[in-house]
Amino acid sequence: MEQNIGSDNSKEEISRVTLGDVTPMRLDCGFELKNFGVAYKTYGKLNKKKTNAILVCHALSGDQFVSGINPFSGRPGWWNLVIGPNKLIDTERFFVICPNIIGGCMGTIGPKEINCDTGQPWGLDFPVITISDMVRAQALLLDYLGVDKLFCAIGGSMGGMQVLEWAVAYPDRVFAAIPIATASHHSAQNIAFHEVGRQAIMADKDWCGGNYFNHDCYPKRGLGIARMIAHITYLSEPALQSKFGRRLQDRDTITFGFDADFQVESYLRYQGSTFVDRFDANSYLYITRAMDYFDLAERHGNGTLAEAFRGTNTRFCVISFSSDWLYQTSESRAIVKALNAVAANVSFAEIDSDKGHDAFLLKEPEFWKVLSGFIDGAAQKYGLNGSQ
Amino acid sequence: MEQNIGSDNSKEEISRVTLGDVTPMRLDCGFELKNFGVAYKTYGKLNKKKTNAILVCHALSGDQFVSGINPFSGRPGWWNLVIGPNKLIDTERFFVICPNIIGGCMGTIGPKEINCDTGQPWGLDFPVITISDMVRAQALLLDYLGVDKLFCAIGGSMGGMQVLEWAVAYPDRVFAAIPIATASHHSAQNIAFHEVGRQAIMADKDWCGGNYFNHDCYPKRGLGIARMIAHITYLSEPALQSKFGRRLQDRDTITFGFDADFQVESYLRYQGSTFVDRFDANSYLYITRAMDYFDLAERHGNGTLAEAFRGTNTRFCVISFSSDWLYQTSESRAIVKALNAVAANVSFAEIDSDKGHDAFLLKEPEFWKVLSGFIDGAAQKYGLNGSQ
Repeated sequence: MEQNIGSDNSKEEISRVTLGDVTPMRLDCGFELKNFGVAYKTYGKLNKKKTNAILVCHALSGDQFVSGINPFSGRPGWWNLVIGPNKLIDTERFFVICPNIIGGCMGTIGPKEINCDTGQPWGLDFPVITISDMVRAQALLLDYLGVDKLFCAIGGSMGGMQVLEWAVAYPDRVFAAIPIATASHHSAQNIAFHEVGRQAIMADKDWCGGNYFNHDCYPKRGLGIARMIAHITYLSEPALQSKFGRRLQDRDTITFGFDADFQVESYLRYQGSTFVDRFDANSYLYITRAMDYFDLAERHGNGTLAEAFRGTNTRFCVISFSSDWLYQTSESRAIVKALNAVAANVSFAEIDSDKGHDAFLLKEPEFWKVLSGFIDGAAQKYGLNGSQ
Repeated sequence: MEQNIGSDNSKEEISRVTLGDVTPMRLDCGFELKNFGVAYKTYGKLNKKKTNAILVCHALSGDQFVSGINPFSGRPGWWNLVIGPNKLIDTERFFVICPNIIGGCMGTIGPKEINCDTGQPWGLDFPVITISDMVRAQALLLDYLGVDKLFCAIGGSMGGMQVLEWAVAYPDRVFAAIPIATASHHSAQNIAFHEVGRQAIMADKDWCGGNYFNHDCYPKRGLGIARMIAHITYLSEPALQSKFGRRLQDRDTITFGFDADFQVESYLRYQGSTFVDRFDANSYLYITRAMDYFDLAERHGNGTLAEAFRGTNTRFCVISFSSDWLYQTSESRAIVKALNAVAANVSFAEIDSDKGHDAFLLKEPEFWKVLSGFIDGAAQKYGLNGSQ
């Protein structure tokens, strides 16, 4: 049932489990997914009472390598600053689970993986998935790992959407939830930016209707452009200004041409070109679509967000960043307001930062203080004292 | 020296003049442009004293058809709400001149036009131009029209950049200047959005290195994507939310696919597809580059904006819109601050609006009141009382 992926990694390090082998998992679109792989990574040990599990949900371009070194890139995991032995989320104390989402491209079932019925990559035959589907697959993974209840679910951006979905869809399985820099639904502007990214991919002739794997080509330029667009939205205007301003790239004067005269151009081109080496273009389509479709109130509350949360016993810590214009503080406030309306246990912090949406991935001492305080307090309430 | 363009329009309606026929015009890049056409449109009559001329400078995707019906699109000119007989800028009173910028694609010299030396369209052989170059060409047009001094130069967005350049480069030729929703230089974020648009065009295989005219193709998709990206930046997040929200397009439920399920997607696709019918892809590259290069302080003030304005006798009315995140109010305030530092005559208004950057093109009564008040007051000071 379990297999290794990657070349020289031990079973503990990179794992993939086949789920839906007994009963297929029914997706929101109606498709029944069977025998599908979910790649994941765990850090630390599950205690005897199985009460110290923290689920980390990754964002659009993230993966399961949240801590330590990512074996594929050779670089630190995407939240290595926060998670690891003796770090804020201490893997000597907690059992951290980070699965690659379904629809992704780091080993979990997605358009890049082989469709057993055809022996070919799924491509656009892969069913369109939702945030709920991602969470449903994660719940099966927890069943497999023997974790009935999470001490905590945490994630930023799309990871935060999964956290919200977890708390609402599986209220008895989540003691504490930390949705960061996220929203209960995708706004028109967010959908718009995603749509342009998708159009850029699909406009690339090397996309080949999603069948690039059969045509010995890859929509590098389209995916690169999608990434460049998204990257602008991850940074605040002040951050771009202080990081780059109008400084020129390796030249003293403008060249009167279309080369990357400005540092910000060079930076964006670099972001685009490195992304295509590690990400699947079709995955980008599927994951952005899942985010666009996310609407917690519509799905669970008949259009009223508070109704989605009614009766919840989960403790929430909602966090936003002042300069995040992609998922603005007002969106977090709407979540807090809905939780308050049903007398839920919720704390809220808007972190003062000029780093924009990406702040949750960066060194932000005030943010870390809030995280650490909430996790420690919740751990005490949950009876997790000191080492387990 | 003068010729008509378009099929069934009178000489007065659409005109093009050949400039640089005696002395070539030296561009900022060093290239000498000779015998180049400038298409323009005038409305109303120049008075005997030649004191009632208003120059209207258009934005990135604008053209010379500012009032009445655009003969190419059959739709109202882009500022028809504001300019015309008995309108706010009354063409019974003022002589309104609107030239198509150099680098453009509505009859003025640009990459789409024929290079006489080769008999082929210029394409990427066209020299990279600047806002200063655009204004320099406009000054030659005014010479040709016999207008020594403008009563007023007005424009929004890139039009506002031209207005600022006019006031600084030709201080004796501008009595009043109205830069709207603009900035004295392009920010890192603005450059970033433009760069992505350019990359989208250049990534399109039908761009053919800018030679699409020789390959019987056209980079429709790339240009469409560039337009979609830009269009998002022209609208505010609240405007997108109230205009579209998460409403679906001609369907009751999401389709679990990549079609335009949401109205905002359908709208953006429409904006992209209609733009490519009226705009030249290479022009888009050149004009966005000119905007990126714009830096008034760097060019005219040794890096200090106030120095660029020192000694000015022009009366300024600087206008911004509260929800414009592309050219934020803070950018207008910086202009006002610099003008104040050299004791210039300046008034400033931030218009409360949720329409974003595009507000200057739309029905905005408070904006119109400010415009009208300033123009009337300035006209009185200039000795333009009642009809001329």
